Amino acid sequence: MTIALPAAFYAVEGVDGCGKSGMVRYLTDHLHALGCEGIATREPGGTPQGERIRALILSGTDDAWDPYAELLLMTAARVEHVRRVILPTRALGRFVISDRYVGSTIAYQGAGRGMAERFIRDLHATAVGAVWPDLTIVLDLDPAIALGRSRKRLTDTAVDEGRFETLDLDFHRRIRASFLDQARRDPDRHVVVDATGTPDEVRARTVAALDEWHRGRAAIA
Amino acid sequence: MTIALPAAFYAVEGVDGCGKSGMVRYLTDHLHALGCEGIATREPGGTPQGERIRALILSGTDDAWDPYAELLLMTAARVEHVRRVILPTRALGRFVISDRYVGSTIAYQGAGRGMAERFIRDLHATAVGAVWPDLTIVLDLDPAIALGRSRKRLTDTAVDEGRFETLDLDFHRRIRASFLDQARRDPDRHVVVDATGTPDEVRARTVAALDEWHRGRAAIA
Ligand SMILES: Nc1ncnc2c1ncn2[C@@H]1O[C@H](COP(=O)(O)OP(=O)(O)OP(=O)(O)O)[C@@H](O)[C@H]1O
Ligand SMILES: Nc1ncnc2c1ncn2[C@@H]1O[C@H](COP(=O)(O)OP(=O)(O)OP(=O)(O)O)[C@@H](O)[C@H]1O
Ligand SMILES: [Mg+2]
Ligand SMILES: [Mg+2]
Repeated sequence: MTIALPAAFYAVEGVDGCGKSGMVRYLTDHLHALGCEGIATREPGGTPQGERIRALILSGTDDAWDPYAELLLMTAARVEHVRRVILPTRALGRFVISDRYVGSTIAYQGAGRGMAERFIRDLHATAVGAVWPDLTIVLDLDPAIALGRSRKRLTDTAVDEGRFETLDLDFHRRIRASFLDQARRDPDRHVVVDATGTPDEVRARTVAALDEWHRGRAAIA
Repeated sequence: MTIALPAAFYAVEGVDGCGKSGMVRYLTDHLHALGCEGIATREPGGTPQGERIRALILSGTDDAWDPYAELLLMTAARVEHVRRVILPTRALGRFVISDRYVGSTIAYQGAGRGMAERFIRDLHATAVGAVWPDLTIVLDLDPAIALGRSRKRLTDTAVDEGRFETLDLDFHRRIRASFLDQARRDPDRHVVVDATGTPDEVRARTVAALDEWHRGRAAIA
């Protein structure tokens, strides 16, 4: 059974190449087909200002930015994204699905680059405000498989803005562990979806997990 | 009497158009002529990364950036500047003179745009580290006069990256008051120089104030 999905703020997270962007497109179409109004967006980016910051961050080599500078740039882009896109869309009663959000900052800048999670969260609370996703969907996949998927995409499209993808496997394993850890610590606001298998299989699992989460919310309300 | 100036980290601050950039050039030549090794630099900027952030911040209209985003961008540029330029230069025993530094962030983003000074200082302490100027030189000038000077420069050179200069006079009065307040609260690390009169007059006052500050430091040491 598919139930009507109330408007919510969803974030899709996971290691590079796990299938986030495709899933965001699919879920957006899915929700539109159910008659829900809303938008897909992405981070870093989602606004003209944020896209300019994205271009700054993702160009260059791995060590182009000090970890703290990178964290501040990511958060600056998020401030603009929340103020100009996420909050206004939510105020209209529409859903927002973001391809990455603060969970990625905790994973990449925190677990990946060693910033204290406390600092990342406090900075978010002060600069961005208390704007957290209603539900974060973690597409869980071994980074070795995920990197294979995104390498294939790179050779298919010859687009390479993906400086993070050149980092080593150990780094990406810490990222994956961080997403799972975030979900474990805040289970009401996370679902973890097994992202192995075909796109259709992962989509079906994700829609089932979404339906279950919405039923749980409806039962509480 | 001019005494030999030990290497230090100097910041030159003041409202838009008060004469900071000209003074930084003059002081750098002055210190070089005394046989001191060191460099002039500026904020936001001072590194390739920082100059790219500078271009982001200074392009566009006054409301192009949310105040928090602006603060985070400024601080990201400062992180790079300190790690890549200021600390390495100081480690060689050389002076650094920066055209603006954290005092400008406290003045513009704090007093000007209403961020809490506590947040700005805590962010600096965590992201940048405990890197404060040994001496901040405040060129104190009524913003109405200073804006006249920089307007003249704009019409002379037809360069306009100065989005801050289009803000109103009341804003710039808060900036001036903030620099004076910062100096009053931390008198050992600030000198306030009257920036009225001819460039020669202001230079002579500045060098005299610098000499006196260095004599005070030598007396303590
Ligand atoms: N279940 C799947 N099986 C095989 N390939 C997949 C699967 N899901 C997505 N892909 C392919 O893997 C590549 C990466 O997918 P996608 O761009 O959606 O991932 P992403 O998580 O957004 O990556 P990035 O973190 O790099 O933005 C794409 O070429 C996509 O078509
Ligand atoms: N004492 C002075 N009397 C008259 N004009 C001056 C004086 N000092 C500087 N100027 C002129 O005022 C203009 C602004 O000076 P300058 O660029 O050094 O100031 P600034 O504080 O760096 O400005 P901004 O904040 O815009 O960078 C320049 O055209 C400069 O030649
Ligand atoms: Mg993607
Ligand atoms: Mg200047």
